[in-house]
Order: sequence, then C-alpha cells, then structure tokens
Amino acid sequence: MTRDKASKSGDQVSELTASRLSVYLRCLNALDAAGVKSVSSKTLAEQFHLNAAQIRKDLAYFGEFGVRGVGYYVRELKRHLRVILGLDRTVRVAVVGAGNLGLALADYPGFRQEGFEIVAMFDSERGKVGRKSRTGVRIIEMGEFRKVVKRERIDIAVLAVPASAAQEVVNVAVAAGIRALLNFSPGALKVPPGVKLKNVDLTVSLESLSFFLARGEADEDEG
Amino acid sequence: MTRDKASKSGDQVSELTASRLSVYLRCLNALDAAGVKSVSSKTLAEQFHLNAAQIRKDLAYFGEFGVRGVGYYVRELKRHLRVILGLDRTVRVAVVGAGNLGLALADYPGFRQEGFEIVAMFDSERGKVGRKSRTGVRIIEMGEFRKVVKRERIDIAVLAVPASAAQEVVNVAVAAGIRALLNFSPGALKVPPGVKLKNVDLTVSLESLSFFLARGEADEDEG
Repeated sequence: MTRDKASKSGDQVSELTASRLSVYLRCLNALDAAGVKSVSSKTLAEQFHLNAAQIRKDLAYFGEFGVRGVGYYVRELKRHLRVILGLDRTVRVAVVGAGNLGLALADYPGFRQEGFEIVAMFDSERGKVGRKSRTGVRIIEMGEFRKVVKRERIDIAVLAVPASAAQEVVNVAVAAGIRALLNFSPGALKVPPGVKLKNVDLTVSLESLSFFLARGEADEDEG
Repeated sequence: MTRDKASKSGDQVSELTASRLSVYLRCLNALDAAGVKSVSSKTLAEQFHLNAAQIRKDLAYFGEFGVRGVGYYVRELKRHLRVILGLDRTVRVAVVGAGNLGLALADYPGFRQEGFEIVAMFDSERGKVGRKSRTGVRIIEMGEFRKVVKRERIDIAVLAVPASAAQEVVNVAVAAGIRALLNFSPGALKVPPGVKLKNVDLTVSLESLSFFLARGEADEDEG
C-alpha cells in the first residue's frame, strides 16, 4: 500500500495481461483440438467474444507472432504463450487445507491439463493426514510443510483454509520459501515484498449474474 | 457467436463493470467493518490497488454518489451498490453436483454474507441424495430439479458437475426456467438467447502466478 503509483499501475497491467494471455491459450487449445491450423485475431475475437485490437496489442508486446495474410499459427502461438506464462516446465503446486474445497482443487482437471502438478496437500487435522484425494494426492501433516516444500521444490501454495487460519498459513508458506500464493479464503492477507498473493473471490462471479438478473439483461459470456 | 459487434461490446463493458462494482462493494465492506465513515476515490484506489478515475467513471454511470470535499459515504455507497448488483433482495441459488467442489460451494461463506441463499444441491447419485452439506444444504435427486426450481423460486444454478455432464445439466436448467448459470466445469457450453452463462476457470488464476514466477516479478495483488 505504500508503493509508488508508477510501479502499482505497471503491476496491474501485467496482472490483467497475464489473465488475458491465459484466456487466449485456452481458446487456442480449443481451436487446436478442433484441428484448426491458423487463425486471425479477428476470427479469434469473434469466436471467443474477445477484442481483436487487444489481442494484437497483448501479443505484440511479447514478440512478432502474427504472419501477414495468415494471422497466427495455432500450435506455434500456443507454444509461445506457454513459454510466456511459464508453463514450458511443470509448475509444482501444494494445496493447504484438505476440506471439500482443498480436495476439489487437488483434483481439478484443468490444472493438470495445463502442466501444473499438484504435488501434495497439507492439513493439521490428524484424521485427514495419510489419506489421499480421489486422484491420489496425499494429505501430509502441516508440521511437515517446510521440509516437503524444499524436498519437492514447490512453486505455488494454494490456500483452502478457513479465514481465521489463512494469515498463519501464509506466514508458514513464506518462511518456507514460497513466492506465489493463490488464496480462496475471504479477508485481506499480508505478504512481504517479493511474494505474489492472488485472491480468488467466487462471490464476484455470482454477483455479476445477480447484476444481469437485476437489470433484466442476459447473454452468453465466456469470461 | 453470431451477435453483432455493437451488442457484443456493450455486453463486455457491462460484464467488466459488474465485476468491478462487486470488488468496490467488497472494499467498502472492509472499510465499514473498520469503522470508516467516508472515503475519496483516491484513498479507495490507493488502499485497494484500484484506479481512482475508473472508480469515479463506473459509479458516475449509475448516479451521483460522490459529495464534494467528502468523497463517498461508505454505508450509503454500499447500499447503492447492493441495489445496482441486485443484492437488495435474497438471491436464491441451487448447486448442481454434490462432489467436493459442489459441497465446497454450497458452504462457501462469502455467498451467504452477500445475500445469496444456497437453497438446495442436486445430484444424480442415489448414495448422495438425502444427505446434507456441512452447513445443512440438502442434496436432492436431479429428477426433482424442475419441481424444486419452481417451488423454491431459484434464480441462479451453479454447475459443479463433470464436463461430460455439463451441457445436459444446462439444458435441464434452462428448460426449468433458470436464466443465469455459473459454470465451473471446463469446455464450452451453449445457452439460448436470454440466458446468461458465466464460466469460472480456476486455471487462469494459477497461470497468472506462474507468469509472475517465470518473469521473476512479484508483488501483492488484490485481484
């Protein structure tokens, strides 16, 4: 909260760009699966309800991926996007909290598909330790967190714990050397400089539906 | 995919605006809980890493909420935002799919807090029917869906089913009169005109962390 505005706004641009690149990758995966070899920014925008100018601008920032008269080669652009998003190697993830949400996240098929590996789950409840999720992710005692993070070279910790326990888990994760956290619990959490915390608030999605119902508008949306 | 561009872009603006209003409401809740009575767009932006000009523009679209020399009265603006977002009445929600994700969503504390009521869960698995989630949401047989939706005046259906079952559930929900759906399963789903479908892709959040790790950048983020 004390950072200067220039770095703050630079940050927000990167953040939004990363989300859009991730959406483009998802669209390209769908096109590739359908056997499409190349696509223009215009067609990509039309098919997936995106903005063609924004696509061109976002991609141009990272290199010259477009080919005049062709657009983008689907597989080539996929490969480039995966490198930009850091998905050209397996990203190793630990889920903290083995309740329903934690178990659901550990087994979420989309993660594995994109090259994320859910290496372990952690919980402080004795009765859960030693069990496995449906897809075989083992639940480890929270006391082992630091050791396992080092040994398994965990990149990202996903927090699916009650709000009251969240800050303590963040502190433990940061002390263990974790530099990126995805948090599903409500409430503001503090991380030191150099650590990235991303909050997922599922209420925002539901409110956006409520907004449309209240306004009597409705339409398909891929967001 | 055949809609004209004007309506499509108008749609996207509303969609993004709704998400931002929802974030503003979350920030105002935090300020209200901390006993703050009024706040300027500048302070709001600084405290929550938002854009002050965007806040003023978004709010001005719906009315004149700002007071010269004061900014916004926190509680008053909260009340206005809740009306705009359709949260001035209880929004009734059904969760389809009583797996780990469905159970987690049925018990998600953020929903209840903002005035959403999770009225029922549905599942086609006999062994689950009749059970309840931890907070007491009853699991009903999928065959009863239409009847229960009418009787309980369900506004929104949340889909937490495997991808292979998702389109069939959408069809059943639409036939039962549901006009707003929140989908957690991967893959593209079709809804008829007049029905709003919102997809939540949890992979996007994880990829944005991977993006920052790959670039060696890191910073706190409230998005």
